[in-house]
Amino acid sequence: MTRTLVRDLDVATLVARRTPGYSLEAPFYTSSEIYDVDLDLIFGRHWIFVAAEAEIPEEGDYLTVDVGAQSVIVLRDDDCEVRAFRNICRHRGARLLDAGCGSVGNIVCPYHQWTYGTDGSLRFAEEQAEPFDKSQFGLRAVHAKTVAGLVYICLADEPPVDFDDVVAMIEPFLLPFDAKNAKVAHQTETIEDGNWKLVMENNRECHHCEANHPELTSAYFPFNRFAAHEVPVRQRPLFDRFQTAAAALDATCELASFPRGDRRELDTRVSGFQIQHLPLDGVGASYGSNGESLCSVLVSDRVDVKFGDFSLHTQPNAWFHFLGDHVTVFSALPVGVDKTLVRTTWLVHQDAVEGVDYNVDDLTLVWRSTNDEDRSLVERTQRGVTDPGYLPGRYSTVENDVESFVSWYIGRLAALLPGAN
Amino acid sequence: MTRTLVRDLDVATLVARRTPGYSLEAPFYTSSEIYDVDLDLIFGRHWIFVAAEAEIPEEGDYLTVDVGAQSVIVLRDDDCEVRAFRNICRHRGARLLDAGCGSVGNIVCPYHQWTYGTDGSLRFAEEQAEPFDKSQFGLRAVHAKTVAGLVYICLADEPPVDFDDVVAMIEPFLLPFDAKNAKVAHQTETIEDGNWKLVMENNRECHHCEANHPELTSAYFPFNRFAAHEVPVRQRPLFDRFQTAAAALDATCELASFPRGDRRELDTRVSGFQIQHLPLDGVGASYGSNGESLCSVLVSDRVDVKFGDFSLHTQPNAWFHFLGDHVTVFSALPVGVDKTLVRTTWLVHQDAVEGVDYNVDDLTLVWRSTNDEDRSLVERTQRGVTDPGYLPGRYSTVENDVESFVSWYIGRLAALLPGAN
Amino acid sequence: MTRTLVRDLDVATLVARRTPGYSLEAPFYTSSEIYDVDLDLIFGRHWIFVAAEAEIPEEGDYLTVDVGAQSVIVLRDDDCEVRAFRNICRHRGARLLDAGCGSVGNIVCPYHQWTYGTDGSLRFAEEQAEPFDKSQFGLRAVHAKTVAGLVYICLADEPPVDFDDVVAMIEPFLLPFDAKNAKVAHQTETIEDGNWKLVMENNRECHHCEANHPELTSAYFPFNRFAAHEVPVRQRPLFDRFQTAAAALDATCELASFPRGDRRELDTRVSGFQIQHLPLDGVGASYGSNGESLCSVLVSDRVDVKFGDFSLHTQPNAWFHFLGDHVTVFSALPVGVDKTLVRTTWLVHQDAVEGVDYNVDDLTLVWRSTNDEDRSLVERTQRGVTDPGYLPGRYSTVENDVESFVSWYIGRLAALLPGAN
Repeated sequence: MTRTLVRDLDVATLVARRTPGYSLEAPFYTSSEIYDVDLDLIFGRHWIFVAAEAEIPEEGDYLTVDVGAQSVIVLRDDDCEVRAFRNICRHRGARLLDAGCGSVGNIVCPYHQWTYGTDGSLRFAEEQAEPFDKSQFGLRAVHAKTVAGLVYICLADEPPVDFDDVVAMIEPFLLPFDAKNAKVAHQTETIEDGNWKLVMENNRECHHCEANHPELTSAYFPFNRFAAHEVPVRQRPLFDRFQTAAAALDATCELASFPRGDRRELDTRVSGFQIQHLPLDGVGASYGSNGESLCSVLVSDRVDVKFGDFSLHTQPNAWFHFLGDHVTVFSALPVGVDKTLVRTTWLVHQDAVEGVDYNVDDLTLVWRSTNDEDRSLVERTQRGVTDPGYLPGRYSTVENDVESFVSWYIGRLAALLPGAN
Repeated sequence: MTRTLVRDLDVATLVARRTPGYSLEAPFYTSSEIYDVDLDLIFGRHWIFVAAEAEIPEEGDYLTVDVGAQSVIVLRDDDCEVRAFRNICRHRGARLLDAGCGSVGNIVCPYHQWTYGTDGSLRFAEEQAEPFDKSQFGLRAVHAKTVAGLVYICLADEPPVDFDDVVAMIEPFLLPFDAKNAKVAHQTETIEDGNWKLVMENNRECHHCEANHPELTSAYFPFNRFAAHEVPVRQRPLFDRFQTAAAALDATCELASFPRGDRRELDTRVSGFQIQHLPLDGVGASYGSNGESLCSVLVSDRVDVKFGDFSLHTQPNAWFHFLGDHVTVFSALPVGVDKTLVRTTWLVHQDAVEGVDYNVDDLTLVWRSTNDEDRSLVERTQRGVTDPGYLPGRYSTVENDVESFVSWYIGRLAALLPGAN
Repeated sequence: MTRTLVRDLDVATLVARRTPGYSLEAPFYTSSEIYDVDLDLIFGRHWIFVAAEAEIPEEGDYLTVDVGAQSVIVLRDDDCEVRAFRNICRHRGARLLDAGCGSVGNIVCPYHQWTYGTDGSLRFAEEQAEPFDKSQFGLRAVHAKTVAGLVYICLADEPPVDFDDVVAMIEPFLLPFDAKNAKVAHQTETIEDGNWKLVMENNRECHHCEANHPELTSAYFPFNRFAAHEVPVRQRPLFDRFQTAAAALDATCELASFPRGDRRELDTRVSGFQIQHLPLDGVGASYGSNGESLCSVLVSDRVDVKFGDFSLHTQPNAWFHFLGDHVTVFSALPVGVDKTLVRTTWLVHQDAVEGVDYNVDDLTLVWRSTNDEDRSLVERTQRGVTDPGYLPGRYSTVENDVESFVSWYIGRLAALLPGAN
C-alpha cells in the first residue's frame, strides 16, 4: 500500500499510462509539479475565457484576472477594443492594479510612477539614464479576443490557431443573445478547495444533479441523452412532456431563424467545445418557478421568451447558459493545486431595470445554490483523491463529457510536454 | 554553522548514523520527506491503535480515523465484527463519510450514490456499462483486530505477524478490565503543533512530570525506577509509603487472581510494547484527591477498587491506563510533519451513570490537564528542533523508554527502507 | 512564456548571469531554495544588526531575535558584556526562552530543568549517567559585538574580519550620539509580506518617497544627489534653502567637533556600509512640524539641537537615523521567503521623561507612517515579482544604492556559494 510519489514518476509517464474511461491518478489532482505543468501547458497555451465584455463597457474600464500566480489586466482601450496586459510594472516589478475592476485614463505604478497608456505603451518614467528606449519597456501584451461578447485571452506567444474556426462555428448561435451589449446584473466569486480539473469534471456531468441540485433539476428534463425506448414506465408522462417541449423549441427556433444542431468537439480539437440547445420544463422560459422568466426584458429581439437553454462549454475552463431572458457565464481559474476560483456573471439586457424588470435574488438563485452545492462535492472529492488510498474509478455511461474533458486534457499534455512530438 | 539539508542526505544515511542515547537529528522531526517515510513505513506497515470498541457499540456504528492524509472507516458490521475500510468511493474518489462518527445501514456516496454494504461490498452503482464486475469495486479493506476491547488497524497488505504473540501476552492482563463492554464517558481531541515522534517521546518519560504536571504527580509515586538505596533521606517517608502501597497492590492482585509481572519489549520486536502495574498514592484507587475513586462502579468484578494503575504502551502510537474505576486510552495520529492529533477516551462501566456514579469534569481532570501541559512541551520542543542551531542531546538515565521508542523507530526504518536487507 | 523554474537552474547560474543595473530575477525573491541560501550565506556568514544595547540595560536582561527559523538569545551577562547564544536546550532541543524580552538569573529549560548560567555554561542537569562532561553541553555561543550602543551578531564560526575596520571608521561618528546609554522610548515590529531583499531595496532609495511618504518628505530636502545646475527653475527657492541649511549644518558640526565626510562602501567590502549627514528642512532639528525637536533632552552634550540627520546603512539588514534629539534604529529579519520582520526602535536620552520631554505618538509618527507605507509597497512588489510574467527592470539614476545593495548581495553569494573560488 506504498504510495507512488509523483517525484518517482515523470509527468509524461503518468500521462502515457492514463486508462481511458477512468478518473485520473491522484497526482493530477494533488501534485504541485503537475499543477505547474497545468498552468504552463493548459492555462498558458490555450484560449481561456476570463470575462464578459459587459464587465468593461466603457473606454478605460478594466478588470484584473488571476490565472494561478499570474495577474492579467483586461481593459477596453480608447478605440473600444479589448486588450490584455501583464499586471506588472516593467521598472521594479510592482503589481500595477489591485485586484478587482475600475476605470483608468493611464495606468500609473504607485511605486515610482511609471505611467503606461491604455495601449500598454510606456509614456513616462523619471530619472532614466540615456539612452532609454521606452518602446522596450511597455506593458507585456497578452492575446485577447472577443467572441460575441465573451472575452478570451491566451498567455502563449503563439495561440492555438484553430480557435478562429471554433469562433466561426459558434458565433452564429451566440450573436442573437447579444451579450456584447448586455449589462452585468450580478457577479459572484466562489473559492472551491479543489483542483481546477475536479471543478471542470463536476461541471461536465449532471449524473450528480438529481441528488444534489434540487433547484437546478426542477428546471431541466432528465432525459438529455435518453433514447425513447430507454425511458422507464414511471417516467413516461414526464418524457412525453419533454418531447412536446423539444418540439416546441424546434418550432420557436425556426420562427426566430435561430440555427439548430448541437456540436460536440470536446476532445477532438485543440480548442475543444460543445454547444447544446435544450428545452426547459414547465413554461420553458427560464429558471423561475414552473419555468417562468426571471427578467421581463429579453436579451435581444432575436430570441424568444421560451427559448430553452442554449449552452456552450469551452475547454479548459468555461461554461455558459444562454436563456431568452438572461445569460450566465462561468469561468474556473486555478488559484492553487487544491484551490479554484469559480466566477459567475449574470447578464441581462442593458435596458432591464433592477427591481422593476428583474430581481437579483430570484435571477441568481438557481446557480448560486448550484455553485455552492458543487463546491461541496468538489471539496469532498479533493479530500478523497488526496488520500493515498484513492484509486482511479470507472466513469458511468452518463459521464462521457467528463471523459471527454479528461481525454482532451491528457491529449493536450501529451502533445505539449517537452519531448512530446 | 551551515545547515545540513535533508535533501543532501538520503534517509538511509540519517538512519544509519543515529547515535544511540541521543535525540534524533532535526530532519526526523522537520522534514516532509521523512514524514512521508514515517507514514509509509511506520504507520503504513505496523498495527496502530485507533479506537476503543466502546466507541462503536452497535451494529452499523462507525467512526473515521485519519492517519496522515488517509481516512479509514472503522465500523461494526452486522455480525458484530469490527471492520475497517478506506473512506473513499471507488467511483470518482469522493470522501464517503465525513469526519467523526455515526451509524449507517449502508454507506452511500453523496456524489453519485454508489452504495456499499457494511461489509464493504458494492451493492448499487447507476448507469454502468456492462460488463461491470461489482466485486472489483468494493471498498478497499484495511486489516482490523480487536484486543480486549481495543481496536488496532494495519494499513499494510501483510501486517506484522508477531502481533498475535503480543496479543497473547497482554490479553490476560487486559481482559479483566472488560473494556470491550465499557461505555465512553468522554473523549477529547488535542492538536499538538509537533511531530508525532516528539509526542511519543514526551509520553515515554516522566522526567518532566514533577515540574510540569502537578495534577498527575499527586497521584503517582516518583519512585518507579529507584532502588531503595538510591532514595534521598528527605524522601524516605514517601518511599516507605510507596513500598507499603506496592505490597498492598501485590496482595490485591493475588486475591483477584490478576497476573503480575511487568513486560518490557519496547524495542526488541516489531510490535513493541510494555506493560506495568504500579500502585497509586493515597487511597490508591484512582486519580481523585488523595487517590480516591472517580467512578463508583468498577470497570468489572474482576478488579479491585484499589487496583493501582495498569499501563500499556504500544509502538508506534498508543498508551493506556487501566484503573479499577475507569480506563483511559490514548492514540497519537500524525496530521502533518509538525502536527499531531492526540485522541483521549475515558471508559467506564456501561452501567455507570453520569452525574450519579461519576462526574465527567472530575473523571477527566488529570489527563485533560496533563495533555494540555504536554502539548505545550511538545510545541516548545518542535520550535527548538526546527531551529538550524539544534544539535541532538543526550538522554538522561530516566529516559530509557524514550531511547527505546527511538531505537525501535530507527530499527524499523532500517529494516523497511527500500534497499534495506 | 514558459516560466523558468529555479529547479532547472542552479543558484550559481542565476548569480552569474545577473545583469548589473537591473532588478534581480524572480527566484531571488520567491524561491525557497534561494531563501535557504540567503539564510546560510548572507544571514549566516555576515555581521547582522539585531538590537540596541539600550534594550538590555541591566545584567541579566535578555531579548530573543529570530533569524529565519533560528532563535538567538542576546543577553547582558553579569560582567555587563553583551553575549549571544542559540536559544535551544542542549538536552532535547526545547526552545529555552519564549519570544520577547525579560530578565533572568539563570536560564532554566522548562522541560527537564537543565540550567545554564548567563555565560552559557551548563550548571545543572539531573539524572545524567557518568561520565558527563558539562562543558560539552553549554549553550552554543553566537558571536556578538557592540558598536557604539548597537548590537551586531554573527552566526558563522568565523565572522568576516573586515568588520573591525568598519567599526573603527564609523564609531567616531556614532559615539557622540551615546546610544549605549540611551533608553528605549518605543519599539514596533512590522511583518511585511515580502522577501527581505525587497525590504532592503525599498529602504535603499527615496525615489518612491515623494509619492508615498508625505510625513517623511516634509522633513527632508529632495536634493541629496542633485548638482546645482540640475535643479529645475521652479525648485530654485527650495534649493537655496537647502544650501543654506547644509552650510549651517557644516558650521554646527565644526563647532561640535563632529567629523564630516560621507563614506560610501556599500558594495566594495564584505561588511558593506554607508554614512551620510544631511540637513533637515525647516528648523532643521528633527521630524517635528517645521523641523522642530521631538524630545527636549538631546541624546548627548556632544551633539547640537540642529544636528540634521546622520544616517548609517549596514549590509545586509539595517539602517539608522541619528538625530540630535533621538535615534531610530531599524533591522530587517527574514521570517520566510516572502515574509520579513522590520523592528524599529526609538532611543532617547535616558533622563528624558515621557509625557514631559517627549511624547511617544509624536516621536514615532514619521517612521510609523513611513514603515507602513513601505510595507504596502514591498507587498505590492512581492506580488508582482511572484507573477511568472515578471521580468527584471532597469534601475533609474537615483536608485544607485539599490544597485549597490544588489551587487553586494550577488557578490557575496558569488564568493560564498559552494564551488566558488
